[in-house]
Amino acid sequence: MNESQHVSSQFDEDMARLRVRVSRMGGLVETQISAAMNAYSSGEVAVVKGIVETDHEINELEKAIDDDCAHVIARRQPTASDLRLVLGISKIVTDLERMGDEAKKIAKGVRRIHENGQDLAQFGAGVRHMAEAVLGMARRSLDAFARLDTGQAAGVIDADHEVDVEFKSIIRQLITHMMEDPRTITTAIDIITIARAIERIGDHAKNVSEQVVYVVEGRDIRHTKEKTA
Amino acid sequence: MNESQHVSSQFDEDMARLRVRVSRMGGLVETQISAAMNAYSSGEVAVVKGIVETDHEINELEKAIDDDCAHVIARRQPTASDLRLVLGISKIVTDLERMGDEAKKIAKGVRRIHENGQDLAQFGAGVRHMAEAVLGMARRSLDAFARLDTGQAAGVIDADHEVDVEFKSIIRQLITHMMEDPRTITTAIDIITIARAIERIGDHAKNVSEQVVYVVEGRDIRHTKEKTA
Repeated sequence: MNESQHVSSQFDEDMARLRVRVSRMGGLVETQISAAMNAYSSGEVAVVKGIVETDHEINELEKAIDDDCAHVIARRQPTASDLRLVLGISKIVTDLERMGDEAKKIAKGVRRIHENGQDLAQFGAGVRHMAEAVLGMARRSLDAFARLDTGQAAGVIDADHEVDVEFKSIIRQLITHMMEDPRTITTAIDIITIARAIERIGDHAKNVSEQVVYVVEGRDIRHTKEKTA
Repeated sequence: MNESQHVSSQFDEDMARLRVRVSRMGGLVETQISAAMNAYSSGEVAVVKGIVETDHEINELEKAIDDDCAHVIARRQPTASDLRLVLGISKIVTDLERMGDEAKKIAKGVRRIHENGQDLAQFGAGVRHMAEAVLGMARRSLDAFARLDTGQAAGVIDADHEVDVEFKSIIRQLITHMMEDPRTITTAIDIITIARAIERIGDHAKNVSEQVVYVVEGRDIRHTKEKTA
């Protein structure tokens, strides 16, 4: 084995370990989003405490992965696509951590609504539909990263627009509802907070997918109109 | 000049250029926040178009700086504090770009309120106070980065809690107001969006400051309770 092969195999080992950690973090985030949304649908708030606790674990993984990224760069001095993979991971973990934060916000919003003794049923369908779409985006973005699949990443990026439209429609419905029955205002504000958190998770899934394209193709497609052109 | 000095001076040149670009991006973001808040205070919506246009420039700077970071790592293979500076910049530009997005949200919210012919005066004082605090945090975080001043960074991190408290108080006031006079609901929802954007800018200023501590001291203080301990 020559020097270059030696370095390369150490790099591969480091990267395999890093990717396992990112997968673990992604899996946790996905579970958190799913648990928060189940709490919303069922009104079961017992899970909220667990969601808040697991968020700490996600935060620690973010720091551990960023630390790993810095060490891999310093020790292995990767270039080209190897470097893009490390830098992409460093961006992706920021988005994953924020997705976790948004899941926590959803859970806390559900608990507030429950504590106020309010009923969610009347706003259930719209928010649940958006939540399912966004959970699917989160899953597909993580899968796109795990398999470095730019086709799947493109699908996630395309899906984000629809979520934004749904979010705006939910806000309009809630405003109409509040005006008709001002007693619902407090709950409606909590539901807006929850809907916004769901919408933000979609944004972060899009960001993760954009990083997949960067890692694989070296193209930075952030802030472009024709993402998948 | 030996090989190591030669590499070091090229690195210093690259980094000086990078830091100038970050300063330029930071200056633009600061101007955007300030302009959006002036629009809120004055009700002058003519500036909103300019704010939306300048946001594109900020987005392009984010991509250019990230590209520079990747090139500096690949070419100069920095380690230790040099590497932390590059990785810190790569995190900071993400926060700066999002601060720009929030400024754009504020500006668009002001325009919506104006188009609906509503008056902002009654909610002015609380939001303006929070806005001034957050603009100060944004400025000090950029200054802390420019001078790699961890003391100033710690001050920004400490200030964030107070902004969160102010934000919650504004939301409570708005809910009371909406219940008393449901005709104000549409405007109140826009003001909540604006207040939330201001609060988020504070979060990003805190994130920038945490990166300053990482760059200077190598300590990752994200997600810790005692940030400045």
